[in-house]
Amino acid sequence: MPQPKILAIAGGVGGAKLALGLARSLLPQDLTVVVNTGDDEIFHGLHVSPDLDSVTYALAGLTNPDTGWGVAGDSFRTLEALRRLGAETWFGLGDLDLATHIRRTALLADGMSLSQVTAEITRHLGIECAVVPMTDASVRTVAMTDVGDLAFQEYFVHRGCEPRILGVRFDGADTAYPSPAFADALHWADAIVYCPSNPMVSIGPILAVTGVRSAIENFAGPRIAVSPIVAGQAIKGPAGKMMEELGEEVSCVGVARRYKGLCDALVIDRIDREHSAGIEDCGMQSVVTATIMNTEYEKVRLAEEIVNIIDRWNS
Amino acid sequence: MPQPKILAIAGGVGGAKLALGLARSLLPQDLTVVVNTGDDEIFHGLHVSPDLDSVTYALAGLTNPDTGWGVAGDSFRTLEALRRLGAETWFGLGDLDLATHIRRTALLADGMSLSQVTAEITRHLGIECAVVPMTDASVRTVAMTDVGDLAFQEYFVHRGCEPRILGVRFDGADTAYPSPAFADALHWADAIVYCPSNPMVSIGPILAVTGVRSAIENFAGPRIAVSPIVAGQAIKGPAGKMMEELGEEVSCVGVARRYKGLCDALVIDRIDREHSAGIEDCGMQSVVTATIMNTEYEKVRLAEEIVNIIDRWNS
Repeated sequence: MPQPKILAIAGGVGGAKLALGLARSLLPQDLTVVVNTGDDEIFHGLHVSPDLDSVTYALAGLTNPDTGWGVAGDSFRTLEALRRLGAETWFGLGDLDLATHIRRTALLADGMSLSQVTAEITRHLGIECAVVPMTDASVRTVAMTDVGDLAFQEYFVHRGCEPRILGVRFDGADTAYPSPAFADALHWADAIVYCPSNPMVSIGPILAVTGVRSAIENFAGPRIAVSPIVAGQAIKGPAGKMMEELGEEVSCVGVARRYKGLCDALVIDRIDREHSAGIEDCGMQSVVTATIMNTEYEKVRLAEEIVNIIDRWNS
Repeated sequence: MPQPKILAIAGGVGGAKLALGLARSLLPQDLTVVVNTGDDEIFHGLHVSPDLDSVTYALAGLTNPDTGWGVAGDSFRTLEALRRLGAETWFGLGDLDLATHIRRTALLADGMSLSQVTAEITRHLGIECAVVPMTDASVRTVAMTDVGDLAFQEYFVHRGCEPRILGVRFDGADTAYPSPAFADALHWADAIVYCPSNPMVSIGPILAVTGVRSAIENFAGPRIAVSPIVAGQAIKGPAGKMMEELGEEVSCVGVARRYKGLCDALVIDRIDREHSAGIEDCGMQSVVTATIMNTEYEKVRLAEEIVNIIDRWNS
């Protein structure tokens, strides 16, 4: 049986974990990982794409295992020197990581698209599958909070998600089109996999890109999501806090409600098996398995289980 | 007796040595160091100003003592990561040094002039005297060689000064005006000091900036130069090779000929005392002393001797 061709949709740390599992389970030409760029920000004049880089470093085997982002063994000498020069340095940029941002910024200034730049960077790091930004246009996630509108990194990193979320907005999304490889993959993919990323601020921006939501609503093959909420809390990041502040149920059922009409099966952790019925009420199957991915084995195992679900679906 | 107010004109390594001596010998408000920016180049999208940085690092006590440029104890992790990403990395940029270029580029992009950026950087590094670019406009030194025209860093660093020099050109100089602090210093300074920098490609670009040559020709106070050629060769860099290829005498007399009409006294090393008459034939005094500056003591001693020459001149 030929392997399914998969379009994976990913944010940062959680997305990178499943993306690595899928990359180990599929032939490179059968996997395209589309990554959120709503979190992108300019720091020190450099174009930083945190989610693209988390996925890229994971697939290149470079990820700092202690954080899930950044480069293993990185140092912060340039950032310390920037601080000495009076720059704001609350966003951690390592010396090895900086090379990526410097290279990206230079190639963008040379006229390359973010897709082309990402292909260039991932190729040099030995990544064989396609890692692509959701769009080559600028979409910026804005956290609408009780202290006003905040750029996402300002909310997430500088303020540590402290302000209360009133809503989330994706500036520029209505005039942004999917990147060429994303648009292509929406046509050729046999299945869509939502990685266990924050549904609001990691998957949300991707769905907000013009035409994406309707393309996924009308997608022919199975659409499988992995819940980033396990046992009533996010594995990592502010998804739980944000859902709570928005009055949503902080559970895999809350995730299912977010994906209503966009998803055929939600993969949930064994600890959440009691929620299966609630998920099925949202018009999708629930698949119960082990979803925590700490080791590479766990990442590949979950990816292979998803590939098996897709195989069964199409047979 | 009040100290003279000095306008020092400097290139990179040699200029930085005497600039440090002058900074240790004068009150900060009595010294302005004007620095060549004809060597500036964009690397990886970052605005690198090698001579400004050599002077800045010297005055901040940061200079790598092994090279005379760059930052002591610097590492090259970002550059190595850039190489891995496919960037050309023949121009050495350390991790600490990169912070300067990143900061400069970001502040320029924010709309600050190179003068303002340099003031901001030097202030944060604790430098009290004024370090200013020769111009806020873009002037680019072009080495005209037997293998064609080469951007200066291409000639100097990438090709190791290997091509034969046919001439030197300063693109943009005819529409570039002196930076505000340079123009001011040409009015208030009691004396001009040419640091022992390459007369063709370090001092030459500064003299080529619109109006500078005539302002110095008509300058009221003494104009003192220190010869960068000692015992028939350059202390550092390609000045000797370039002068030879241009058919000039590689000696302090050759330097005097270059400064004819722009200089009242040339400070030469004791080893060159035989050349005094040749220098005086160029219409300037010769002052014989120890000019090699390896230690900080030697830098300060030479600076104080120059200050004494100026004091005697004006009395």
